[in-house]
Amino acid sequence: MKIDTIRLDHGSGGKMSHRLILDAVLPIFDDPVLRRLDDGAVLDMPGGRIAFSTDTYVVDPIFFPGGDIGDLAVNGTVNDLAMCGAVPQYLSVAVIIEEGFAGGDFERILTSMQRAARVAGVRIVTGDTKVVPKGAADKIFVNTAGIGIVPEGISVSGANARAGDRILISGTMADHGMTILTLREGMEFESPVKSDTAALNHMAAALFERFGRKIHVLRDPTRGGVGTALNEIAASSGVGVVIHEDRLPIRESVAGICEILGFDPLYVANEGKMIAVVAADVAGDVVDMMRSDPLGGDACIIGEVTAPGPAPVVMKTSIGGTRIVDMLTGAQLPRIC
Amino acid sequence: MKIDTIRLDHGSGGKMSHRLILDAVLPIFDDPVLRRLDDGAVLDMPGGRIAFSTDTYVVDPIFFPGGDIGDLAVNGTVNDLAMCGAVPQYLSVAVIIEEGFAGGDFERILTSMQRAARVAGVRIVTGDTKVVPKGAADKIFVNTAGIGIVPEGISVSGANARAGDRILISGTMADHGMTILTLREGMEFESPVKSDTAALNHMAAALFERFGRKIHVLRDPTRGGVGTALNEIAASSGVGVVIHEDRLPIRESVAGICEILGFDPLYVANEGKMIAVVAADVAGDVVDMMRSDPLGGDACIIGEVTAPGPAPVVMKTSIGGTRIVDMLTGAQLPRIC
Repeated sequence: MKIDTIRLDHGSGGKMSHRLILDAVLPIFDDPVLRRLDDGAVLDMPGGRIAFSTDTYVVDPIFFPGGDIGDLAVNGTVNDLAMCGAVPQYLSVAVIIEEGFAGGDFERILTSMQRAARVAGVRIVTGDTKVVPKGAADKIFVNTAGIGIVPEGISVSGANARAGDRILISGTMADHGMTILTLREGMEFESPVKSDTAALNHMAAALFERFGRKIHVLRDPTRGGVGTALNEIAASSGVGVVIHEDRLPIRESVAGICEILGFDPLYVANEGKMIAVVAADVAGDVVDMMRSDPLGGDACIIGEVTAPGPAPVVMKTSIGGTRIVDMLTGAQLPRIC
Repeated sequence: MKIDTIRLDHGSGGKMSHRLILDAVLPIFDDPVLRRLDDGAVLDMPGGRIAFSTDTYVVDPIFFPGGDIGDLAVNGTVNDLAMCGAVPQYLSVAVIIEEGFAGGDFERILTSMQRAARVAGVRIVTGDTKVVPKGAADKIFVNTAGIGIVPEGISVSGANARAGDRILISGTMADHGMTILTLREGMEFESPVKSDTAALNHMAAALFERFGRKIHVLRDPTRGGVGTALNEIAASSGVGVVIHEDRLPIRESVAGICEILGFDPLYVANEGKMIAVVAADVAGDVVDMMRSDPLGGDACIIGEVTAPGPAPVVMKTSIGGTRIVDMLTGAQLPRIC
């Protein structure tokens, strides 16, 4: 890296900005379209439906076990596109950097983004870099936007859940959120936890390939967690949701930390998990297929869709009771993603 | 506005986030695709070439004569798409808000974005909202990404300038940058200046419609100004550029402020101006057409493209000399856009 420290000059739009792009960004984000350095990327697309999504990442700390703000930002937008039924194709990357940020950290984040993009099979084709004076932003914020192609025959939406459908999750809950929290609080635990940040597009594509329109809803339960995502689905579809506490997959280490700190894992962010609402007749096969994917080893059926009830989402508890699962209220965990 | 102050809860992803979206965002950004509240927008697109661009806006102050961070962010991405030869179609909007930001200011910015989107003829179809603790960001940062359709037969790129081409600008230089600077420094002048933020897509479309492939390069000289943009074009195309000082359009008030403060208007940001590099035989007609547009009243030919010379860009000065116009070095004006 030829750049030790990011300076205000690097955001000027002038010579130093060009040096930053040429010396730091292009060697890592090596793409022929990006290399043109035009105001935007011009891309060939087939006609049909596309998906378009964006997310900004403000996670603190920016490096954490399992990932960093860079791969989190790539995976996050890749996943949002995949949850729309799209095959992600192209990403934009826009960063806000605080003056004085270490060039090596910037390079590390870009490298992580490029690696995540390769794994997901997407290209970073356009971007923007802003530098703000010290104190005007905290370290670095990363925005990604993405474009994907929605294959014919796919119809997936938060509004498509039907009574009788089964609700699946592709793996354990709360890994990302509890990793950030324990790290931020400087806590040490015997079983270290790590973020689950990962790209779900290949798993989603395999599901659509085999089960087509029997996949009714996909959603990645990030901020707000599984509890909030299920409430969103219930509201969009006008249905009820019942989940079963004893089926919810959670690592023992994560469950322990949640208990010590008083967090409900139903509301803690995940960054590499999907909720799938699918037709009952294929639910078992969908679980089997998820489990055959390296990211889906702990996949299981956690509940079912019902007619609308007095509460959108309820949970049958381990001790035989019933509890209403509301949306997350309040924000115990700012800057979780 | 039901929300007085933006709180951390509004970024939680839970109930308060939903209230922010339902009460503040959707009533202003009223779009059927956005209303679905899925993870991304699914859109019908014709096959062919699309343009994809992104920019983040960190301007300080966020409200200024002529505009605010909201319309600046919409116009900026609209213009980047238009400079690629595209007809802008869809925008994403992602905001980072500092805890404690006034709800009324947020509403004002959203309203300004929606108005700008209407004028430009684009739809805001997907978005993201993050809230960070007080001090972790300064007020509000706005990212927009956009998708446009590139009509057949258009080939415009920073690399397409050819010796003999004429260089045009659609209006006066340095209005945006000097507005922000004077406002930030608390300076008062007799002739108040205002930002030129505006969407150039309609003007660009009219030029392509009439002149087609005779339009070789379009670029909006934002950060880094006209001087830097011309250097970028010269480098991408492998040509030389000669401009004439006495032809450069600049408002008297802006010129006066530049002189007092020691800024060279060639390096000051514009947010509603385009540089066009066009075939010599249509240059006069292009100027006439620009002048017939409300945004192009001061359009003129400022120079010509030459064979590569010892310096990429030179200026014939008013007193008969020749000066090298380098890229902007340094950053006198952080957070100008």
